[in-house]
Amino acid sequence: MFDEMWGAIEHLGRDGRTGGYLRDAWSPADRELREWFRQEAERRGLDLREDRNGNLWAWWGDPSGRPGVVTGSHLDSVRQGGAFDGPLGVVSAFAALDALRARGAEPARPLGVACFTDEEGARFGVPCVGSRLLTGVLGPDRARGLTDDEGDSLAEVLRRAGRDPGALGRDDETLRHIGVFLELHVEQGRGLVDAGAPVGVASAIWPHGRWRFDFRGQANHAGTTRLDDRDDPMLPFARTVLRAREAAERAGVLATFGKVRVSPNNANAVPGLVSAWLDARGGREDAVRALVAELADSSGAEVSAESWTPVVDFDADLRDRLAAVLGGAPALPTGAGHDAGILAAAGVPSAMVFVRNPTGISHSPDEHAETSDCHAGVAALADALEDLCRS
Amino acid sequence: MFDEMWGAIEHLGRDGRTGGYLRDAWSPADRELREWFRQEAERRGLDLREDRNGNLWAWWGDPSGRPGVVTGSHLDSVRQGGAFDGPLGVVSAFAALDALRARGAEPARPLGVACFTDEEGARFGVPCVGSRLLTGVLGPDRARGLTDDEGDSLAEVLRRAGRDPGALGRDDETLRHIGVFLELHVEQGRGLVDAGAPVGVASAIWPHGRWRFDFRGQANHAGTTRLDDRDDPMLPFARTVLRAREAAERAGVLATFGKVRVSPNNANAVPGLVSAWLDARGGREDAVRALVAELADSSGAEVSAESWTPVVDFDADLRDRLAAVLGGAPALPTGAGHDAGILAAAGVPSAMVFVRNPTGISHSPDEHAETSDCHAGVAALADALEDLCRS
Repeated sequence: MFDEMWGAIEHLGRDGRTGGYLRDAWSPADRELREWFRQEAERRGLDLREDRNGNLWAWWGDPSGRPGVVTGSHLDSVRQGGAFDGPLGVVSAFAALDALRARGAEPARPLGVACFTDEEGARFGVPCVGSRLLTGVLGPDRARGLTDDEGDSLAEVLRRAGRDPGALGRDDETLRHIGVFLELHVEQGRGLVDAGAPVGVASAIWPHGRWRFDFRGQANHAGTTRLDDRDDPMLPFARTVLRAREAAERAGVLATFGKVRVSPNNANAVPGLVSAWLDARGGREDAVRALVAELADSSGAEVSAESWTPVVDFDADLRDRLAAVLGGAPALPTGAGHDAGILAAAGVPSAMVFVRNPTGISHSPDEHAETSDCHAGVAALADALEDLCRS
Repeated sequence: MFDEMWGAIEHLGRDGRTGGYLRDAWSPADRELREWFRQEAERRGLDLREDRNGNLWAWWGDPSGRPGVVTGSHLDSVRQGGAFDGPLGVVSAFAALDALRARGAEPARPLGVACFTDEEGARFGVPCVGSRLLTGVLGPDRARGLTDDEGDSLAEVLRRAGRDPGALGRDDETLRHIGVFLELHVEQGRGLVDAGAPVGVASAIWPHGRWRFDFRGQANHAGTTRLDDRDDPMLPFARTVLRAREAAERAGVLATFGKVRVSPNNANAVPGLVSAWLDARGGREDAVRALVAELADSSGAEVSAESWTPVVDFDADLRDRLAAVLGGAPALPTGAGHDAGILAAAGVPSAMVFVRNPTGISHSPDEHAETSDCHAGVAALADALEDLCRS
């Protein structure tokens, strides 16, 4: 079942030239993936619900009485991302449910498969929009006002998709249904390769955030404006890129400028504005905060925080229970944010299962997981769900 | 007449949020501007022709016998550019023709108004596409293969616009019609402000060129890839931006990185590719060449030349004749490329008239010319044309 499901979505949003994926939230590719999710739920006789924030839930059993055990991930991608980040967790969730049924398991609790909306933030700049709205960490007014590269607001995009942007916001009814959340995800580093294990368990998510740096100058002609007369924002941007790397090395944290928008972006014009996004993470929150403050000070840019997630230590009892069921799978921290981290921070007992990535590369077409490791992930997830649903 | 014509096109392709213009070649805005040109030609009973490369010609008199006196400029813009760069020369050309007729002038030679296609190169990366194709400096195969940001080739775009890309190439028949070319243009520096003159004459165009630097790395997750494991192309790009400025100051030339394209351009991904365009110009060709070679060597990037224009010294006799007619208008060199420079390099006697720009700013919504200076430009152009058409 895993292989068929994987085959059914593999081509959606794939850029044939690069092999990378373009699955922005609420794009045509995203719509097809959501429709695929609906059909998989229907085929299994699950009760499909879309919550007020666009997240999808497929229930086996009714969670309105007793909160359920939920598993899943997301279907959107970073631009030119890989096939596994997100979809592996959703496909594995359905496959694990199938495995439980094949074993004849009769869960004592409702079991849900979840698909969170806009986890990557590729389109509107803020990651985990669906889970942040659900838990109230992201306010509905700010969410509605987020804009994409075309200048379209999330509110407009939702309206065009037939959704009601007025309904966005913290959703206690949906939250009450989630007793435990378990997210399976491809590993985004080489921890499991080094440990020689196909499957592992997350111990913690590093504190991490995203800041927008706006370097403002004066747009002008590149051929007629003397160097002394220029106010070229590309120069302080370049200095800040190099300073970020030095400061990150010094502090033992990660700092990345991976997204840049230049205006007007003409080869023969001095730019008027360079906007660049800093992604910073690390094992210690104070070190990350200090790095951002140092760069903001020295850059001369207008700096605005777009997101911040404090350290997430996953529920220790749940982690130990999982590790026991999974026969001593190694525990790993990660620098990547996830919906499971947002739920954990909101007080939902949550855990993550990682599947080995032979290259360690992620957010790239080179992201990979061997089919045998994917199957091991499904089996591990099924074992974990069976255990959690036992009583 | 000048003011009415100006008012008729002022809104075309204007971005209401910024006041900047988006008039890419062969875009809907460009199509409307070309239609406006056709109507202005028709209203005056001029013979409108589009040559094989998409350039427009409106003739008063038949140039097939004796080559004519041609004036004009272009209607496309850089992205977020100003209103004057290009259109001022076309509108002034029609207005000067009207002035000649109002004076009862009867030209002894055919008089043509020209609109060159894709002067700025905003869409396909290469400037002066229309005049370079016309003169054979740009080969038709290379031109057809140029691609825009959407990956569409010029050939496809032309086909969609109802043109025949197979017809592109050097056009001797059209060239034979041009006895003299005179381009009026807004000044793109502060030479006329400093000289206290509304109108000036170009002495030379600096040698200038455009080079694409492709910095290749390995796309990866910004939160899970250790600094030591990264191959982040943003770092050598940033170093090259700073080196370009230092080298330009040292050599007394201009160097600008004004256009950047990052892939995948996600805030949470180390980029796999940073492409950046270097614009370099200066009074001395060897100094410009040496700067580009130094940057190409030290950058580690794959570097390809996209365009190169050697120094253009405008026809001295023509320049002196113009200066005499215009009552000693100051002569100025410029760092900006123009279709007049392409024609001059191809052996067509050419000259340029500049109109004062109070800010000196160009390729920006802040580009400006006072209406009284625009009118002075039209009068000067009419005087020059009358003199050139006398015999």
